[in-house]
This record gives sequence, structure tokens and C-alpha cells, in this order.
Amino acid sequence: MDNLCINTLRCLAMDAIDKANSGHPGMALGSAPILHTLFTRHMISTPVDSKWIQRDRFVLSSGHVSALYYSLLHLCGYHISLEDLKNFRQLNSLTPGHPEATLTDGVDVSTGPLGQGVATAVGIAMAERHLVATYPNLDVLSHYTYVLCGDGDLEEGVAMEAMSLAGLYKLNKLIICYDNNDVTLDGPLAQSNVENMKMKAESMNWNVIEVKDGNDINAIDAAIIAAKKQAEKPTLIICKTIIGYGSEQQGTCAVHGAPLKKEKTAKLKEFLKMPAKDFYIPEEVKKFYQNTYIARGTQAYLNYQNKVKSLSEKQQKQLQMILKNEIPMEIFEKVAAYPSGYSNSTRNVSGELLNYYCDHSSLLFGGSADVAKSVMTGLKNHDDFTCQNYAGRNINFGIREFAMACICNGFACHGGIKPYCGSFMVFVDYFKAAIRMAALMELPVIYLMSHDSIAVGEDGPTHQPIEQLSTLRAIPNLNTLRVADANETIGAYQIALQSKKTPTAIILSRQNLTTLPNSSSEKVALGAYIIAKEEEKLDAILIATGSEVELAYKAKLALKSYGIDVRVVSMPSWYLFEKQSDAYKESILPAHCQKRLSIEMASEFGWHKYANQTLSIQEFGRSGKASDVIEFFKFNVDTIIEKVKNML
Amino acid sequence: MDNLCINTLRCLAMDAIDKANSGHPGMALGSAPILHTLFTRHMISTPVDSKWIQRDRFVLSSGHVSALYYSLLHLCGYHISLEDLKNFRQLNSLTPGHPEATLTDGVDVSTGPLGQGVATAVGIAMAERHLVATYPNLDVLSHYTYVLCGDGDLEEGVAMEAMSLAGLYKLNKLIICYDNNDVTLDGPLAQSNVENMKMKAESMNWNVIEVKDGNDINAIDAAIIAAKKQAEKPTLIICKTIIGYGSEQQGTCAVHGAPLKKEKTAKLKEFLKMPAKDFYIPEEVKKFYQNTYIARGTQAYLNYQNKVKSLSEKQQKQLQMILKNEIPMEIFEKVAAYPSGYSNSTRNVSGELLNYYCDHSSLLFGGSADVAKSVMTGLKNHDDFTCQNYAGRNINFGIREFAMACICNGFACHGGIKPYCGSFMVFVDYFKAAIRMAALMELPVIYLMSHDSIAVGEDGPTHQPIEQLSTLRAIPNLNTLRVADANETIGAYQIALQSKKTPTAIILSRQNLTTLPNSSSEKVALGAYIIAKEEEKLDAILIATGSEVELAYKAKLALKSYGIDVRVVSMPSWYLFEKQSDAYKESILPAHCQKRLSIEMASEFGWHKYANQTLSIQEFGRSGKASDVIEFFKFNVDTIIEKVKNML
Repeated sequence: MDNLCINTLRCLAMDAIDKANSGHPGMALGSAPILHTLFTRHMISTPVDSKWIQRDRFVLSSGHVSALYYSLLHLCGYHISLEDLKNFRQLNSLTPGHPEATLTDGVDVSTGPLGQGVATAVGIAMAERHLVATYPNLDVLSHYTYVLCGDGDLEEGVAMEAMSLAGLYKLNKLIICYDNNDVTLDGPLAQSNVENMKMKAESMNWNVIEVKDGNDINAIDAAIIAAKKQAEKPTLIICKTIIGYGSEQQGTCAVHGAPLKKEKTAKLKEFLKMPAKDFYIPEEVKKFYQNTYIARGTQAYLNYQNKVKSLSEKQQKQLQMILKNEIPMEIFEKVAAYPSGYSNSTRNVSGELLNYYCDHSSLLFGGSADVAKSVMTGLKNHDDFTCQNYAGRNINFGIREFAMACICNGFACHGGIKPYCGSFMVFVDYFKAAIRMAALMELPVIYLMSHDSIAVGEDGPTHQPIEQLSTLRAIPNLNTLRVADANETIGAYQIALQSKKTPTAIILSRQNLTTLPNSSSEKVALGAYIIAKEEEKLDAILIATGSEVELAYKAKLALKSYGIDVRVVSMPSWYLFEKQSDAYKESILPAHCQKRLSIEMASEFGWHKYANQTLSIQEFGRSGKASDVIEFFKFNVDTIIEKVKNML
Repeated sequence: MDNLCINTLRCLAMDAIDKANSGHPGMALGSAPILHTLFTRHMISTPVDSKWIQRDRFVLSSGHVSALYYSLLHLCGYHISLEDLKNFRQLNSLTPGHPEATLTDGVDVSTGPLGQGVATAVGIAMAERHLVATYPNLDVLSHYTYVLCGDGDLEEGVAMEAMSLAGLYKLNKLIICYDNNDVTLDGPLAQSNVENMKMKAESMNWNVIEVKDGNDINAIDAAIIAAKKQAEKPTLIICKTIIGYGSEQQGTCAVHGAPLKKEKTAKLKEFLKMPAKDFYIPEEVKKFYQNTYIARGTQAYLNYQNKVKSLSEKQQKQLQMILKNEIPMEIFEKVAAYPSGYSNSTRNVSGELLNYYCDHSSLLFGGSADVAKSVMTGLKNHDDFTCQNYAGRNINFGIREFAMACICNGFACHGGIKPYCGSFMVFVDYFKAAIRMAALMELPVIYLMSHDSIAVGEDGPTHQPIEQLSTLRAIPNLNTLRVADANETIGAYQIALQSKKTPTAIILSRQNLTTLPNSSSEKVALGAYIIAKEEEKLDAILIATGSEVELAYKAKLALKSYGIDVRVVSMPSWYLFEKQSDAYKESILPAHCQKRLSIEMASEFGWHKYANQTLSIQEFGRSGKASDVIEFFKFNVDTIIEKVKNML
């Protein structure tokens, strides 16, 4: 019976790939027994409520195995019809080329870019441990996190970073099934890898179980049972499989990513002793899934509901708070504006706000990549998150920026958490791929990025962001907020913490910034606003962000003595400004005034949408005292006066 | 005597940091014995010719230990004066915050962003093996590659990716000295790491030697001697050191990155039994370095020169060719233009050109991150680079994009090689940090990036670049070339292969593109050129790149029937266009014609510098047949007609 199910899955996947004439047969054929065993014998989740908080999570890190995954989800009763399977990889179908959590019922995490699935799963498993420990009386949160990954996933550095943390944190409820078929797109794995993966995982404090025959479902089952019993370590189950099992090209890279097509699929079906019919599902297979995965999930969900009913009112409220994952308005309202003239770095202000929100809401959870003391992400009133204390809230991710950001994606995918993480801004280069996934998955992760310009000073060009603001602003569905002072930082936090579907990057200064007379936490939400209006006539507009708003303000005052009347616009967020009405945009940047100078200590890239002149930096930075470096790049009032005069 | 030297180095570093009031005392104090032992007893290089091809290379992966490094280079006789040490971290000094190879004599690799130094060193070690094997009769190329790295370097995934490859390739002449002080910026290493690093390295086929006392220079020496004898494996020497050794705060993170300042430095000098004087160098220390590092290097360099003299004329020519690292013009000249109407994907054309150049020049060396068969980086007439065959030229980097790009930086740092590497374009996100370092170090690495738009089709949004062109174009000193057809691909290759100080990203299509009537390989060098001129009057300008140039061309023809006369500009490189004269720019994009529409299947981000209307994509892509996805995003003639009409 198990074999019939597995072969049904294999054939469904091949039919979907053939019909699309696009997809990846290799690992689908090889890993079908693993997924079948996992889902029919272990996974506890249910199509009745596919977002159920206590469900076991499953991450298909090898996202290219989507055809198999959708076939499985179909048998498991999710909203993927046979028609959807036939529309595999077609425009606007529910069955895209790689799994998309925002689109397809039953998919927990969007995957495709290799390695990130593993790292995201580590985040999910950390979230689970943290919630269970944070709400100890709420016995409805514990679950397992399963992963299917391939050889490619474990070559990626991000997977190693994350696995190291999983070992450190003893995430015993994390179980990775590693489809080890020893073949990658370009050929045998040995071309690029001769590691002893067992030893490598063990060196990182993992429990490793080997399954010598990936078609042996009892061995797979036994491995998962043993893994679930592990009390101290996460488990890597290394399953030796055969890529493209049963096809003519089995065991070779030729079957990795090219459809088998009719003839070879027919032969495969013969080999598997399956009827030649397309998209064929025997009734007994449907029933088997009904009686195993679906029945188990339904029962567990009923148990959960009963347990919830038996909770005290206080506990019920707590659970609701977790499920809603919203910070009450009164917490925001209590934050007072800073007085004009207050001087502090925005990283320090950020640290104060972060501490305030963490003290007042248990939903926030995060940390930094070994720069807590510089980016000010440390929480004074909370312990470290460690394997002895999962309720701790300061995460020391180590110098592993990419894993950090993927883990935050995992937190958000899990639910019940508002994740944040901190880094020096220039090192966004290390984790941009994870930010993209957050934006694509519509996860409201918060990135706290300080040391935001050449004002970093002595650490020099490797540590001074130049093009990073462009990198961030160009990402769809990412709100990049470069704040000018303490009040704008307040506004940024409100937006970031209230966001539901958009990640937010809050860009913070290393150096002190003075709170400006008209800066506004509320107006940050408009993306751009007039912080100093022209007095009589609008000669020109200075548009600035972050630390340069004060400079623009000073330049405005200086320009007055030349009889030049300018407006200063603070523009913390291009993303939010673009969302405003045309009328609002026109009120800030009127079309009739095209004399506009942008002022930002970064690349001018992108600024010509709003300004026709820029004061910017078109090269890498310099090592030196911050004030010297700023002067070297001519960020001063004189340069602005000159530029404005030239414009007029 | 050794101790006096070591303490002199320590005190010099502290004085430099104190004077700058900025820098990292911790690892400088801890790792001084390692660097002293390495340089006085092993390193073979010379200030007489700091670019000598056969010199041992040294990579300070922990770039923040720069104060110690500069002090060492001063003693070693490089062009770093005592005055330069006093100018540590000052604007335009030769002693910036992190080492810069473009700036400071004796520095082989710019470092700072952690992990990348290790990966770059792996590239240097691969380059050495490859050159030695490629030119077997040229006995003047073999050398060691040494690295000093810290705990942070080995937490980064990129270091793990690269170390895995070093083990695979049995790079026995690569020796990493790991300053294992068990402390990072935020606290004890155990907060973020409990790995067994010895076991982890061994699992990746490394030889591991432990030095229990990082102050024991004989043990360090013995370890390096043993490492040099290793015939089969790279070596990791794990030296247990004490961060901030000798200072009041030794062993704690407080000493990682904050200057000791006068008082504590005075106490340190007392502890080290050094005089209280600032920037003090005993004469005997100078002499010791003269008699060890400098004498050994001078002698070795003389031997090298004598050996070179004894080479045959043919061998001398070969050596000159390697040192010059230039492809002869006649090889470029032999490439014939493709006929108008020729249809092929530019990734295929790229594959043909790459094969041609590799067949005709031994300087090229590269590969891809497991997508050789998709990005067409495979060389038909050459073997794989393996530990059995270092002369092989196809590198299978595995699914390790970041390490791949760092390794190519290592090739370029080494010299004698023109490095290239290939990836799906969307995965530039994984290795952008390494591209930045190439641009910063002025290394002419070539990135071949195919699958350059939503035309990727079925693989969907995780595999479709949207903002990646912006990411690349915003990087200073990177030439991003998106080619429209086969002829522009020819031009792109010429520019990339002739570049001396600028890395080049060649952006390639997955789908077939038709060679256009007026496309030009020569004009690619101008960045933008008129590919179809207006006939009578210039109503509007269509600016397109890559696959959209043909679409613009078709739209032009269609617009004619509406009496609208437009110019079509192909703009393969913004970088090159910006380098042209104002007159040339005006001839292509005349100021009087502001009716300009950019057409590119990517984010509009940045385009407003040249165009005021855009046909672009401001969201993530879609999974579906390429033609369906392109239609979904309205990249068709009708949309362009409508947009142009609206503009007029």
C-alpha cells in the first residue's frame, strides 16, 4: 500500500512536469518515499486549519521538488485540486514553479533559493522553543519542524551557519531529512563535495542518523521515530536516495531538471507497475491518506480545540494575543516625542525604543549578528536566549548575518512573534537574499541597520555603506526608512511594528543627530514631508534623508542670506511616499518646481526620480575621522549653496 | 629576542590605536606571536618587489587587526613609515582602518568583511596550484598561502563554503592560522558557538593542528613546519590565544574594539617590560627583522631572478605573458560579427565566446556554481579542475555562489589569471558582498549572469531577477553590461577581458534573441548608442537594454504607422555611458527631447536619470510560461505605443 502511494505521488509529479514541459523530475522521484513516510506516519497538521499554530511545520528547502510536494498536498486534502496539478507552473496557478507560502494552501515557507529553507526552518524551530518557554502554562504550542533538503542546500554557507546555531541551541524538535542522492545539476556531487557530512553535522552538535536505502520506508520511519525521541540535539537523517529513481536516466544529472516527457514517463510507469493513465490516483491511495495523515491531523486539531476550551480565561487571552500578533495601541501611544534640540545617535534612540517595546510586549524576539553593543539591540531587562533558557530574548546569532535574517523569516513564518535583527548597514550585502525572501513572503521582519554612511569614519570603505540604500530601496515590498532624528525613529518603529505584510529596514546613524524643530513621528508614515517650508517664494527644494536633513536645514538658513528661499523635505521612506495620493505628492514636490537637490551621503542611484541634482557619493568611502571623511566628500553648507546657485 | 619583537609589535599597534583613538586592540595583542613567527620564520616575500609572482601570500582575514599588520609591515621594510603608523586611520593615510591592497604596499588582499578573507585565500591557493600545473616547466610559480583569521571569520558561511572546496582540492599549500581567543564583539564565543572546529575542519578533509598556548612561538613554529610538510590537505592551525593579552581587560570582549588609551597602555607596557616611550622600536628588533624576514625574502628573490635568467626564451615569454596577464589583440580581432537575424540566447553566445577565448588563451580560469549547463560556462576542450588535475580549467564550485565569487577575487589578487564565474542572475544576491570587494580592490573579475529577467518563466519569482540590475548598477566601479544580442555579447567580452581595474557583470538571456540590423560590438564600449534612428523628426526616445531592445525596435516600426517618429537607443552599460563626453551623451540623449521611455523587464529603479517614463516591473515576478509572464507584465508593442502616445 505504501508503495502504491509513493508511486502514485511519483507519477503525479511526472505528469505535472510533463504537462508543463518544465520542472525537476530527479529529486521528486528519489525523495517520494521520504515525504510519504513523513506525512502519513508523523506530520501533524490539517487542511481544516492550515495556519493552526500548533501544527508541525514542514519546509521543502529543495523548492524545486514542488511537483511532488503539490501532489502530496493534494492527497493530504489541501486546496490543490487535480486541475491545479494540471496547471503546474502555469501563470496564476496555485502550483507555481517553486512553492509560495502566500499563494498555496498548506505551504509553510516559500523556497527555491537553496540553503535558505534549512536556515528558515531553524528559525521556526527556535520560535517554537521560545513560545513554549515564554508561555509555560499554555500547553498548545509545542510541535516538530521537519525539513526536506538536498545536496545543494547543504553546500550553501547559510545552511551551515544556521545548523551551527541549531546545534548550539539544542533544537531537538528540528528534524532534517536530507535527500542525499549524490548528484547535482552539473554532475556527481563528488565533483564539488567530498565532505563527511555525518561528521560535520556531529561537530556542530547534531544527532545524525543514516538511512542507507531511501526506498526503505521502514528505515525512514525508524529514523524519524528515533529523531523525535532525541532530547538534546537536532537530527539530520541522511537518506541515500537515487536521483530520478525508476527512470531511464536514474542516478545521473540528466534527470535533475529536464522533464522526462511522454515516452520515458510511460516507461517509468511500467517500471513502477502503475497504469499508463495520466494524473491517476487509485481510490485506495486517497483512502490511505484519509486514514493516516488526514485522520491524525483532524484528531490532533480536535484535541487542540478541546485543550483551548479548557484553558483559563487568562490563558485564552494570552493565546489570542499570540495568534493576533499585534501590539496594543496604548503601548504606541505612550511613547513621547523628543524635544527639539535633543542630541543622540538614532542607533541609541532605536535601542531605547526597542527596549521599551520589548519590555511592554512579549511578541518581539530578535538579536544581532554580534553587534548588539554597536547597533544597540541588547535588551537590558531580558536574558539571553540559550539552550538553558529558551524564554531568553537576546539572541546572539554570532557573525552569521545571512542565517540571522533567514531565522527571522522563520520566526515570522511561524507566527506569534514580531522578529527583528540588527547589523551594520554595509553588511546587508551578506543577507540581502533573505530580505528578498521576506519581502516576497510578505513577512513583517524588522531590520535595524546602523552605521549608515561614510560617517562610520575610521573603519573605512569596507564598513561604509554607499550603494546599500539603493540595494534596499529597489526591493519590491520592502519599506526602507532612513530616519533623520529621534522623532522620526519613533515613527519608524510604529510603522515597522504595525506592518502586517511588509518588512521594514530602519536605517540608523552611528553619530549623534539633533532633533529638528519640525521633525515628526507621525509624518514619517507619509514617506516625505516638509520639515522647513520656504518663506515667500519656492526657489528650490532640498530633499534629504537621515543625518543629511539637519545639513539641509542649515543650508536653508544660509541660503536665506543670499536671498534664496528653499523648502527642505525630509524623505525617510520612498516606499511610503510612493503610496501617497498624487495630490499629497504634488504638495510636497510640486511639478512646477524642478529645481530640486537631493542630499544623501550615499550613491545618487535612484534619486533622479525626485531630484535633478544630487549631492551624493559615486565612489567607495574613505578611512578617517568621520568629520574629515564627511568634509572630504564635501557634505557641507558651502557645497549645497554652490549647487543651489548653479541650479537657479 | 622573539619576545622583544612581539612586544614591540604589540606596543606599536597600541600606540597607533591610541593615537587614532580608534581601532581594535584585542586580537592585535593576542595574535602578535603568530604573525611574528610566521613572518620571521616562514613567509617568503620581499619589499624589493612586493608584487613578485612567486612570493608567499598572506591574507589578514581579520582585517580589523590592521594596526598590528601595519606595524609588522613596517618592520618588514615595506613602504609604511613610522609617520604612517602615527597616521593610522586618518584620512588619506597609507594605514586605513582595514587593510586596502590598492593603497598599502605589502598588502595582498583588502579585508574587513569577515569570512571573505578565508575564501579569497582559498582562491589564491587554487590559483597557485593551477598556474604551477598549467606551466609545468616554469619552476618559478610555487608558493604558500597563509591566512590569519579569528573566531568571527569561521562563523561566516562563506568561510565554510570555501574551506569545503579547499579540502576537496587538497590545497596542501594553504595554511590558516586561526587565532582562537574564544571571544567576539558581544562576549564569549560560547554565546554563539559550541562547535568542535577541529572535527568540523577534518570532516572537510583538512589537516588540523592545535597549538594550546598562542604565546608559545616554538609550538606555533612547529605547527607551521608540520603544515608545510602536508602533501594532501590544507592545514588549519588552531592557536588558543588570549584576546587583549597583557592588558587589564584581557580575555574579555571589552578589549575587542575599544582603544586602551594612555593609562592602560602604560600599564600594558609595564607588564610587557617595554619602555614607556610611544612608537618605540629597539634597534635590535629592526635588525632581527633585517636578518630574518628581509634577508630570507631578498635571497629568495635573487634565486628567483637567477632562475628566471636560466629559463629558455620560450619559457621567459610564457612568464612574461603570465605577468602581463593580457590577451593579445589578434585573438579579439578574429571574432567575427554575427549576421543580422541570427537567433540564439545570449547565454549560448556567451558560451561560444568563452570557449573561444579559453581555447586561445591559457589566462582564463573559472567556472560556475553548479549551473554550467544552464549558464553555459562549460569548456568543451578542457578538463575539470580537480585535485588530480590542477591544470583542468572547468571549476565546479558547487552550490556555493559566495565562495565562488571570493575565490575569483583570490585569482585576480594572485595574478596570472583572468577569472570568470557564472550564476543565475537572481542569485547575485548571494554573492554581492564579494562583487563589492572586487570593485573596491579594482579586480577585473568577470561575472556571467544568465536567466536575466522574468523571461526565466516557470521557475517563478524566486528565480526571476527584478531589482538585481539596480543592485549591480549602483555598485561603484562595476561595469554592468546587459547585452541585446550576439554582437553586443562580443563587445561585452572584449571590454570585460581587456578591463584592468574594473569588474564586469555580463547579463545574459535565457531565451533566444535575434541579432538586430544595427547592433554593434564596438559601440558597446560607448555604453549607449542609437540602434535605430528617427527618420525625420525626433518625437521621442525609447531606451532599452538586453532582450527589450528588439521589442523597442518593433515598437518603433509600429509607431511609424501612427506618424510617430522615435529613436531607439540600446544602452548596454550605464557605467560606460557615464564615462563618455558630454557631447557624446548629448548626441544620444539630446536635452531637447525629454520624451523618453525606458523599456526593461526589471525594476525602474535608477532609470529616471535617463528617462521620465518607464516600462518596468515594480513587483516580484510570476511563475508561468515565459511568453505568458512577459504578456502579464505587458511587455509588448501595444503598451509601448500607448505609453509613447501618452507622453506626446
